[in-house]
Amino acid sequence: MSKIIDFQTDPSKYRHWRVEYDGPVANLYMDVDENGGLFDGYQLKLNSYDLGVDIELADVVQRMRFEHPEVKVVVMRSGKDNVFCAGANIRMLGGAAHAHKVNFCKFTNETRNTYEAAEEDSGQKYIAAVKGACAGGGYELALACNYIMLTNDSSSSVALPEVPLLAVLPGTGGLTRVTDKRKVRRDRADVFCSIEEGVKGQRAVDWRLVDEVVPNSKFDEVVAERAKEFAANSSKADVEKGIELTPLTRSFADDGSVSYSLVEVAVDRNANTATITLKGPDQDVPADMDAAQALGADLYLLRLARELDDAILHLRLNERKVGLVVFQTQGDPEAVLAHEKLLLDNADHWLANEILKYWKRVLKRVDMTSRSLVALVEHGSCYAGVLAELLWAVDRSFMMLDEFDGDNRHMATVTLSDSNFGTFPMSNDLSRLETRFLGEPQQVEKLKSSIGEPLEAEDAEELGLVTYAYDDIDWEDEVRIFLEERASFSPDAMTGMEANLRFAGPETMETRIFGRLTAWQNWIFNRPNAVGANGALQRYGTGQRGEYDMERV
Amino acid sequence: MSKIIDFQTDPSKYRHWRVEYDGPVANLYMDVDENGGLFDGYQLKLNSYDLGVDIELADVVQRMRFEHPEVKVVVMRSGKDNVFCAGANIRMLGGAAHAHKVNFCKFTNETRNTYEAAEEDSGQKYIAAVKGACAGGGYELALACNYIMLTNDSSSSVALPEVPLLAVLPGTGGLTRVTDKRKVRRDRADVFCSIEEGVKGQRAVDWRLVDEVVPNSKFDEVVAERAKEFAANSSKADVEKGIELTPLTRSFADDGSVSYSLVEVAVDRNANTATITLKGPDQDVPADMDAAQALGADLYLLRLARELDDAILHLRLNERKVGLVVFQTQGDPEAVLAHEKLLLDNADHWLANEILKYWKRVLKRVDMTSRSLVALVEHGSCYAGVLAELLWAVDRSFMMLDEFDGDNRHMATVTLSDSNFGTFPMSNDLSRLETRFLGEPQQVEKLKSSIGEPLEAEDAEELGLVTYAYDDIDWEDEVRIFLEERASFSPDAMTGMEANLRFAGPETMETRIFGRLTAWQNWIFNRPNAVGANGALQRYGTGQRGEYDMERV
Repeated sequence: MSKIIDFQTDPSKYRHWRVEYDGPVANLYMDVDENGGLFDGYQLKLNSYDLGVDIELADVVQRMRFEHPEVKVVVMRSGKDNVFCAGANIRMLGGAAHAHKVNFCKFTNETRNTYEAAEEDSGQKYIAAVKGACAGGGYELALACNYIMLTNDSSSSVALPEVPLLAVLPGTGGLTRVTDKRKVRRDRADVFCSIEEGVKGQRAVDWRLVDEVVPNSKFDEVVAERAKEFAANSSKADVEKGIELTPLTRSFADDGSVSYSLVEVAVDRNANTATITLKGPDQDVPADMDAAQALGADLYLLRLARELDDAILHLRLNERKVGLVVFQTQGDPEAVLAHEKLLLDNADHWLANEILKYWKRVLKRVDMTSRSLVALVEHGSCYAGVLAELLWAVDRSFMMLDEFDGDNRHMATVTLSDSNFGTFPMSNDLSRLETRFLGEPQQVEKLKSSIGEPLEAEDAEELGLVTYAYDDIDWEDEVRIFLEERASFSPDAMTGMEANLRFAGPETMETRIFGRLTAWQNWIFNRPNAVGANGALQRYGTGQRGEYDMERV
Repeated sequence: MSKIIDFQTDPSKYRHWRVEYDGPVANLYMDVDENGGLFDGYQLKLNSYDLGVDIELADVVQRMRFEHPEVKVVVMRSGKDNVFCAGANIRMLGGAAHAHKVNFCKFTNETRNTYEAAEEDSGQKYIAAVKGACAGGGYELALACNYIMLTNDSSSSVALPEVPLLAVLPGTGGLTRVTDKRKVRRDRADVFCSIEEGVKGQRAVDWRLVDEVVPNSKFDEVVAERAKEFAANSSKADVEKGIELTPLTRSFADDGSVSYSLVEVAVDRNANTATITLKGPDQDVPADMDAAQALGADLYLLRLARELDDAILHLRLNERKVGLVVFQTQGDPEAVLAHEKLLLDNADHWLANEILKYWKRVLKRVDMTSRSLVALVEHGSCYAGVLAELLWAVDRSFMMLDEFDGDNRHMATVTLSDSNFGTFPMSNDLSRLETRFLGEPQQVEKLKSSIGEPLEAEDAEELGLVTYAYDDIDWEDEVRIFLEERASFSPDAMTGMEANLRFAGPETMETRIFGRLTAWQNWIFNRPNAVGANGALQRYGTGQRGEYDMERV
């Protein structure tokens, strides 16, 4: 598994999904091409999926928001007879490296979270219309929908058979959504997660596993009815035309580096480090949202978000030894703020809303990235508004203090905007500043009086916005020593430490999925009972059960 | 490490702790006997600890509540010069089996939680008076105290050096208490957890790592002052005399079974199963709390709690292949309720309060036990009030329906009492019934109308209090099939599944420690970077750092 995984796709390339648009309703068919696996060595039978299938789904969901804002209801269904979706492909999982498995699950979780939130964020409601077996990751696809309909026939059921069958967890949010979204009674959840065959018919409703069970003969009809009904009752404003998400401009170098129009990713494989540089605006602020919409995917803040998103995913999956990601920005902070202001002033415009919500997701993707993250605030940088969020998404930040000899770029500053106070909540539902100042909530209030003011290093440090400020004499050594030291630590300990330090404060279903469920799954993904030569994942399909060491931990 | 670990001790046997009682203030000295390790192969240098040291601490904390209710402030300090506590012993950790490490951490976490809650539960406030190095598990001891004082000299600091030094996490609540209790700013937490040398002096206060820093010359004086001050301001009622926690009556059999006065533990090592049977009262209800206090440790509900607590710990540490624990009760439910009523009616009496709070802790210990838990509600049983909590602490329950041929015990019933509605919150701060009916909160209200009514199987099942009710024809087969199937599943998958299904609803610091921090630590405890032949734990003390696979997961 060493070829480059590309997260960019478009409908002309889809092999596994198709969408039929019907006014405010979109019918989304999962119809996995069993020979279309991302890697060799497995077939995607029974609508099972691998990362490639999920990359397409993520693309569908993203385009639904930007290209099809007229859609109010998305009906997720199967394009195959007798099976909705059999879940993640077991042979793929059995053959994948630990780090690939974990990053695969992380990406699929992010995609589930994205369409789950589409109703609240954009007024696009997802319905799962389940016909045929819906097991494991298949039921997890449905669980992330806002409404689940199940047909009532002898072969259609919902199931989470991972534990009895594979000795792993339903790790794409399954356990968490069963307890915390569907609020299934705990002993029933225990039964449900311990049986291979799943639950069907009225019992699935009684146990809160689905919202509605429908006689098989009327299923398509009732699903269509329900979709129309939800669309009619939607509070989403009517929007006629979206914008096209045109292909990203980018070029990959052999050493893992990537150049985009606004983002540079420089990979140093010897140092296990990558530097992501985000550039300030290369275009004037459009006069209004009509002009912004005319720019479409070329609009600065949308383009930047897409490029950063792609860069993060590239590093996660393709550069697994990069343990440290350094963020830099270069550009005019006032121009960043001006671009952002257009969106904030028009937050009720569908496109402005979508771009802001997309930034929320991209910043969460940064938060969730299991690499040490550091921001350098150099002279010439543009940490303002949305880009300043990076300073509190990272584990640590360093800022240039006073003038540097021979450096004639503008002085390093941090500039707050209204967006830093709630526009981009973390997965704990707090803003990054609220999370940062959990112990001193009054500091968040105090910071509001600094909105719009370019804060130089001394002030930024004093206000707690950066970790360290160093002058020309110390900067190079301090930064170098930190980077070298950080890159020398055990990557596992870093992953565990960062997973615990980054999300202080309240927990949400999202933090539980990434913090609790994922951590246990990762542990199990390391245990011989699951992944050993005689473990359940390896033995799957051989007719033999896994051989287990019965010691409990 | 195969000798039986005994969780019972008393002050006459302590090797590592001593307490000096001074009216409302108790000075608790950690003075670890370096040759007093629980196992061979390591020395407990520098006040480092192993499970044996923690068993004594747990005993101290427990006796403080029952034997010394006059104490309002406990000052935790070191009996050694130059070191407060160096944390968990690394050689012990390096040599321990995975399951022992995990259960060791779980027990130490439970002990930390217990004294941390002593202020709220019993008005006993713990102060950490830190002089000398206070590192890793040592700082975690302090973090669980309600107030941390640090002396200001060149060698005294607080530190969490696990990550840089050992490639594991500060897993006894360290990371969670830094972010969520101390609310340390996230980038500072990142710095703090990445440096071996820790933080001292005023910076430790500024970074919220300690509450007070005191000049070294005045340290003892100021600590004594602060202790007096806290004692004087305590809202805890004055109590003159406690009760003695006399030794448990118990006998161990070779097969792992244990007999107590009220609890029978029957271990079936072939089936990887243990049955814990709790007996109803063997004494009349005392007339009042004076009479109850006169009975002391012999009082039914206190004795039962102590025996159950010991039984659970025995199974956890000494019978690690027991994957399934079956709870049974036998006795008169009304007598259980009568004993409970005395405590509930006198909840403001110090001893009644202590016994109820102890049950809260024991039931949490059950919740936290990584074994599949099942309750059988047979004829002749006494699932009433506090004992009924077991029905919702377990993963599943089975109840006998109607009369059984040849069984002349009284009919199986479940009886609710007031205590089921808030007296014994889980670690998510909800009652077990609230957690169970998260999806139907109105059901909890409805159940209040059944308080005091002995509910037979049909009603109990209908009300959602048990999972299944079976009659004479089905009972034996259904229970047997379940037990066999359950015992055949991968124990790792069970542990992960149960950790996710048991704690629906809100998260607290406690659930975060056990759910998120522990899960990540367990994962790291399986990774070669920490525990492999060239990992950091093995190489500790050799002068060589661990050799790390730099791939990030």
